[in-house]
Amino acid sequence: MDTNLCNGPANVGFPIPAKVAREAKPDLTLVNIAGVEVGGSAVVVIAGPCAVESLEQLFDTARTVKAGGARILRGGAFKPRSSPYSFQGLGEDGLKLLSSIRAETGLPIVTEVMDTRQVELVNSYADMIQVGSRNMQNYPLLKEVGMCRKPVLLKRGMMATIQEFLLAAEYILNQGNEQVILCERGIRTFETSTRNTLDLSAVPMLKRLTHLPVIVDPSHGTGLRWMVPALAKAAVAVGADGLIMEVHYRPDEALCDGHQSLDPDEFTQLMTDLKRIAIAVDRNIL
Amino acid sequence: MDTNLCNGPANVGFPIPAKVAREAKPDLTLVNIAGVEVGGSAVVVIAGPCAVESLEQLFDTARTVKAGGARILRGGAFKPRSSPYSFQGLGEDGLKLLSSIRAETGLPIVTEVMDTRQVELVNSYADMIQVGSRNMQNYPLLKEVGMCRKPVLLKRGMMATIQEFLLAAEYILNQGNEQVILCERGIRTFETSTRNTLDLSAVPMLKRLTHLPVIVDPSHGTGLRWMVPALAKAAVAVGADGLIMEVHYRPDEALCDGHQSLDPDEFTQLMTDLKRIAIAVDRNIL
Amino acid sequence: MDTNLCNGPANVGFPIPAKVAREAKPDLTLVNIAGVEVGGSAVVVIAGPCAVESLEQLFDTARTVKAGGARILRGGAFKPRSSPYSFQGLGEDGLKLLSSIRAETGLPIVTEVMDTRQVELVNSYADMIQVGSRNMQNYPLLKEVGMCRKPVLLKRGMMATIQEFLLAAEYILNQGNEQVILCERGIRTFETSTRNTLDLSAVPMLKRLTHLPVIVDPSHGTGLRWMVPALAKAAVAVGADGLIMEVHYRPDEALCDGHQSLDPDEFTQLMTDLKRIAIAVDRNIL
Amino acid sequence: MDTNLCNGPANVGFPIPAKVAREAKPDLTLVNIAGVEVGGSAVVVIAGPCAVESLEQLFDTARTVKAGGARILRGGAFKPRSSPYSFQGLGEDGLKLLSSIRAETGLPIVTEVMDTRQVELVNSYADMIQVGSRNMQNYPLLKEVGMCRKPVLLKRGMMATIQEFLLAAEYILNQGNEQVILCERGIRTFETSTRNTLDLSAVPMLKRLTHLPVIVDPSHGTGLRWMVPALAKAAVAVGADGLIMEVHYRPDEALCDGHQSLDPDEFTQLMTDLKRIAIAVDRNIL
Repeated sequence: MDTNLCNGPANVGFPIPAKVAREAKPDLTLVNIAGVEVGGSAVVVIAGPCAVESLEQLFDTARTVKAGGARILRGGAFKPRSSPYSFQGLGEDGLKLLSSIRAETGLPIVTEVMDTRQVELVNSYADMIQVGSRNMQNYPLLKEVGMCRKPVLLKRGMMATIQEFLLAAEYILNQGNEQVILCERGIRTFETSTRNTLDLSAVPMLKRLTHLPVIVDPSHGTGLRWMVPALAKAAVAVGADGLIMEVHYRPDEALCDGHQSLDPDEFTQLMTDLKRIAIAVDRNIL
Repeated sequence: MDTNLCNGPANVGFPIPAKVAREAKPDLTLVNIAGVEVGGSAVVVIAGPCAVESLEQLFDTARTVKAGGARILRGGAFKPRSSPYSFQGLGEDGLKLLSSIRAETGLPIVTEVMDTRQVELVNSYADMIQVGSRNMQNYPLLKEVGMCRKPVLLKRGMMATIQEFLLAAEYILNQGNEQVILCERGIRTFETSTRNTLDLSAVPMLKRLTHLPVIVDPSHGTGLRWMVPALAKAAVAVGADGLIMEVHYRPDEALCDGHQSLDPDEFTQLMTDLKRIAIAVDRNIL
Repeated sequence: MDTNLCNGPANVGFPIPAKVAREAKPDLTLVNIAGVEVGGSAVVVIAGPCAVESLEQLFDTARTVKAGGARILRGGAFKPRSSPYSFQGLGEDGLKLLSSIRAETGLPIVTEVMDTRQVELVNSYADMIQVGSRNMQNYPLLKEVGMCRKPVLLKRGMMATIQEFLLAAEYILNQGNEQVILCERGIRTFETSTRNTLDLSAVPMLKRLTHLPVIVDPSHGTGLRWMVPALAKAAVAVGADGLIMEVHYRPDEALCDGHQSLDPDEFTQLMTDLKRIAIAVDRNIL
Repeated sequence: MDTNLCNGPANVGFPIPAKVAREAKPDLTLVNIAGVEVGGSAVVVIAGPCAVESLEQLFDTARTVKAGGARILRGGAFKPRSSPYSFQGLGEDGLKLLSSIRAETGLPIVTEVMDTRQVELVNSYADMIQVGSRNMQNYPLLKEVGMCRKPVLLKRGMMATIQEFLLAAEYILNQGNEQVILCERGIRTFETSTRNTLDLSAVPMLKRLTHLPVIVDPSHGTGLRWMVPALAKAAVAVGADGLIMEVHYRPDEALCDGHQSLDPDEFTQLMTDLKRIAIAVDRNIL
């Protein structure tokens, strides 16, 4: 076998890339996002709007999610949209808004990068750089974020096998950046009543195969606002190291993904419920 | 719209068959299996071997699962196997063994029926009749169990949409039998690291659309013994009314599905863990 | 390896059941349906309505398809419908109509059986017995038709792998009936613009792995009347031994599947086009 | 409805982006690749190695495919590989080799671009720029090639719906570049006996919805060298405007995708067979 691969645990059926393999590293990786650690006993919640829209929207949403217990703020400045006619994000103005809200609230920020030419810019603002589902196999982008010294949130492609997901992470580690969080966000199946099919079995599978932390995105995973709480609870029960969820101060007015965004009250209630689940699996949400 | 269908909740995108629709019935259906109620606040655990193999195997396994807190015993006498050369089950001898173990332990029994010609026989032994995944769209069989006055455990086809699943249940209710439990057991997707992809979002979706109870089978859903506990916990957290799991007193010697069967110690530990999750979602496992 | 399995050709990745395996039999199987041979150099077209509705409908449609060059008449008497409220077929009356039209036109008939209890009845009327997609893994039914001495048309389940399809056929051969035709009819995928995704690669794959003839159903495979001709042509080009297509004398009035049924003119034109393709692959349509 | 969308033909079930919509343009688009027209009555064959490896390899392969009737040479210089440890292509050296072989043979060349930063470079060498499956939703890259004045070969994502495929093409047209060819190359399904499932129904569907030419890649679509000819024939029969196929002068020594590459003799034989199919559907291969 190639020395760049290892066997992994019995019966997995495919080789594991050497740098992400759990066998490669006795201790689990802790990813540190401006002081917030993911991969330890705390379940870390990342929340915020799909897209940054305005100072007011971002500030109100950020205050809400912080009060509810979120530790990191999410918000898109560059948005990958299926249609060229949909809102494409505020670009650098969005990054500046995120930066000012970080200063205001103290929440570290995670935001997506879509283009190798934007990596330097996004890196200069973000505390964690997100590579989205559609770019999970954008290898030049993976290499570029691998050369950054910033944590990377890598979302599973909607069509990616577990093996391909690990290989994508390996591209990042292979450039010297080991601060990678994997995110299950739903895969595409024949079922159409939900936007995607959230594959929660990916969490224990990945935790067994790699030393990297694994979080879950129940917002994209279901595409249905009312269903997010149930799947968020399941994600904590199944062993996720964190959650990333869309919250909007006024979901019905959101420029993007309002149908899957929680409102402030729903988020606050959910956080209370999640803390109970976390304790039941011997973890905690601070 | 056809009077046999109703709109269901907003934004579901397909009509709901009239008899299974939640709108059709103000109260949720409680299914009563020889005194054990499914669909109330208790989360009911059904456990036992994939196939009935011998008196010793069944008795030892039954004692274990009862001691751990299972309320109903599962065990296959007629087995649907992909290959004609695999063990096909003990047939009526298996039913007799189940019956004697019920007498011994007091546990109600659920077992599968595959053939319209066997329904009367299986009905004469079982406390609940199972229709397996491969028969979810076997309409003559659905009609036949619909004419029984016994609870029916209907498993989702591995390729069935939520709508088709509800329509299959409607076939049973339409014959006058409303004692139906729906079971999510994993769907087929491109991912091959697990046997199926357990679709836990089906639980809140079904609970919203129908008044019937919904349980989860993490054994078939994952196909991996070590992964069953994590998904069982997630199933309780997501809102399932029960679980059905494969347990074998000696998994390595099982004639069928040993790779996904818990051993007695694993089952006992899992039940302890599940009780904590149940409490965290305001339910209980008796 | 189990003596009931053989290795099959290099690199297939799964064992082939022994009785269906191409290696098991030096000559390809010719299936003889009341004098019409499938599996030889002729490409055999089976056509007719989804469901038998009336003497007039069946007779008009049968005359048309015979004139166009179809060699076998299809028509459903027992219909597997997703909803219990949809038309379920005429039952034995439908079989009688098929029988009288056979007498009139000389076309052998193929019709579906859904229930082990109906096999004897259907066998007494049909020249070939169809096992539909939803019953591909209905093992008691497979065994029962395996005990008949009539050709069987076995349709691939909509989520069945090639291996499972071969194993289902093995159930029939294992009962002593080797007169089995395999039918690719579309698999379920994420794509929703067509009813199913017609997997034409299944044809050369099956032809390589088994000695049984392989035909294609472009009507169910696409679910779109206008698309049937293009896929029918592709099926002949890819090497299918035959086609089964839905034709209705008045598609807009059909009780079932009118949206995917050709009208007489479309069928007649298509047959002309198919003959040209058949010649281009060194076969013929008589 | 948004003025950027139009209804498309009856019963398609989703809106069609305005610039790619067939309704938007009375005439079908002809794409002109350095004098070779795709989208007219000729079926155009593009062939060559997966990756450019050496002058000898490229030259020998190019001569073979030209002699067989291929009109355009393919060859990858920048290769998207699942693993960071696989051969990643020769980069600009590969582009230079392609350029010198073009000078030698007169064949226009198509090669893939993966990174926005490489578009200018690739554009300076290629006659047609390929956007691969994994980048079908890489929107910055789509915009960048949309700003070029070179034909673009856009491959369908392995889990992209027809609607998403059209929206991806719309990104290119929306930047002013209408010279786009769509390529069906297999989608990901549960079936694992082939590398992908070639969705030939996509060809008539796309031809109905858009004015752009549609070609098929049976090499990636099947992943099996012996199966390529059958599916190539089916693709011509179903109405494709062209084919793109992997050919290697020594497939067993290929650095990439040798298992799905035809050797020179297989390619030459296939071209002869394809010409017969083309004639049978009133087209031609020059």
